[in-house]
Amino acid sequence: MTDIGFIGLGVMGRPMAANLIAAGHKLFLRSAHSVPDDLLKAGGVVCATNKEVAQKADIIITMVPDTPQVEDVLFGKDGVASGLARGKVVVDMSSISPIATKDFAKRVNALGADYLDAPVSGGEVGAKAASLTIMVGGPEAAFDRVKPIFEKLGKNITLVGGNGDGQTTKVANQIIVALNIEAVAEALLFAAKAGADPAKVRQALMGGFASSRILEVHGERMIKRTFDPGFRIELHQKDLNLALQGAKTLGVSLPNTASAQQLFNVCAAHGGGAWDHSALVRALEIMADHEVAKKGG
Amino acid sequence: MTDIGFIGLGVMGRPMAANLIAAGHKLFLRSAHSVPDDLLKAGGVVCATNKEVAQKADIIITMVPDTPQVEDVLFGKDGVASGLARGKVVVDMSSISPIATKDFAKRVNALGADYLDAPVSGGEVGAKAASLTIMVGGPEAAFDRVKPIFEKLGKNITLVGGNGDGQTTKVANQIIVALNIEAVAEALLFAAKAGADPAKVRQALMGGFASSRILEVHGERMIKRTFDPGFRIELHQKDLNLALQGAKTLGVSLPNTASAQQLFNVCAAHGGGAWDHSALVRALEIMADHEVAKKGG
Repeated sequence: MTDIGFIGLGVMGRPMAANLIAAGHKLFLRSAHSVPDDLLKAGGVVCATNKEVAQKADIIITMVPDTPQVEDVLFGKDGVASGLARGKVVVDMSSISPIATKDFAKRVNALGADYLDAPVSGGEVGAKAASLTIMVGGPEAAFDRVKPIFEKLGKNITLVGGNGDGQTTKVANQIIVALNIEAVAEALLFAAKAGADPAKVRQALMGGFASSRILEVHGERMIKRTFDPGFRIELHQKDLNLALQGAKTLGVSLPNTASAQQLFNVCAAHGGGAWDHSALVRALEIMADHEVAKKGG
Repeated sequence: MTDIGFIGLGVMGRPMAANLIAAGHKLFLRSAHSVPDDLLKAGGVVCATNKEVAQKADIIITMVPDTPQVEDVLFGKDGVASGLARGKVVVDMSSISPIATKDFAKRVNALGADYLDAPVSGGEVGAKAASLTIMVGGPEAAFDRVKPIFEKLGKNITLVGGNGDGQTTKVANQIIVALNIEAVAEALLFAAKAGADPAKVRQALMGGFASSRILEVHGERMIKRTFDPGFRIELHQKDLNLALQGAKTLGVSLPNTASAQQLFNVCAAHGGGAWDHSALVRALEIMADHEVAKKGG
């Protein structure tokens, strides 16, 4: 069994590391905060530095909040880079900038090691159930080598292309999810304000061209007013920020992503940073002074 | 068999009327232009005025371009209203304003007749194949009476609620379809500009929360560059105009619908009024000076 390094043991990383230990791997662990007891009891080994993790493990997984944290873990003082050697693989499963990712991969490759960007979707529930969707960018040989490990973490695992393409796919996913939520929110609020029953409107639309996973799942949450996460607005804001920063760097205009981000800001202004992202409808409701659940103007 | 009046014999009305004649109904016909020969040969009867159609038929279907045309056909000189009597049903299958519809229904009810708003989706293909989706608003008894006729025109037939609710549902449908197209367009263009293969990105997203009928059908059109309608941008612009005018009247803010309408304007400015609505991606491409089909920045 491959020895695995795992850096970042938060809401996502902790259950993912637990699944790898349960599958029989030896894990070398490191966290910005303390390493959780359950991972130590299960046999995980704490390391003093990220460098030590890279020295002891063959495959080093990182699962940290954002681009600056990945950069620090990899290239900061006593970072992963200083412990790398030919034949090792860095696997960044955080959701970060596709553009920075290409740079990180080049710097890791220069040390003789491989790099895979492998962000996930599916959230804490998917991390615990080992049912994450994993979108991978990097060389095919490295992907083939890490695939058995991915299979202990998720189900829908795709090699999309070269380094950065995994992160790009994740950003594309988050753009569509946010904008499909916004679309359903506009449609149901319009329907409610016009006096129709949004539950019946949703039902009538489910079979046609307006059908989507978001209409099914998040549309129902808007009608039933169940805004417990799920996926928190503040996390989706981080992902849309990656899209908008990327758009600026690449020279692409993403008008509706920008607008959705502003609507999430409305939610945050009303104390909703930790609401489920389906609560984007609350922003439109506040602006219209009307709720989806309330029929008629 | 019920005698049916059919007013409006354009791209949609003509095949719908043909299907009703083929099913054995006697049809009384009226069109702003000349009545097509094939309908006359099949047994359709031309009327001199809309009033005459209403006098001779039990159920009067209207299928005309927009709100002013419906108002003129119903309440203009020698209009349907002047030929109505107790027990008749006006069935407006045009896509028009939900707000005006409620007024039209009241005026028809005052004459002792019933009113159903029953807009469709599925386009010319669905009209010919009798596979339209029909979204109905109005009294249940009138719906039950007309349902056998709807079943000769379409497949997915829903009574959503009272008068206006059929039109509201159609507007909600067109909002979601436009905004889901826009979402897929932003995501695929971002992916292409970031250097990923949009076809592979689309494939990776199909199973997850970003999945939608639009990602399947219109996403493929964007990648394959097949922008023959389908559904013309200029028709979708008319539908979004109903949404935006309705939003103003009702006091709802629909920021992304407004934005999508502006992007359709970009297409129209480049000669694309008759392109398929999936060509909304062309607007973003023109703005970014980059095509989805072309990888890399």
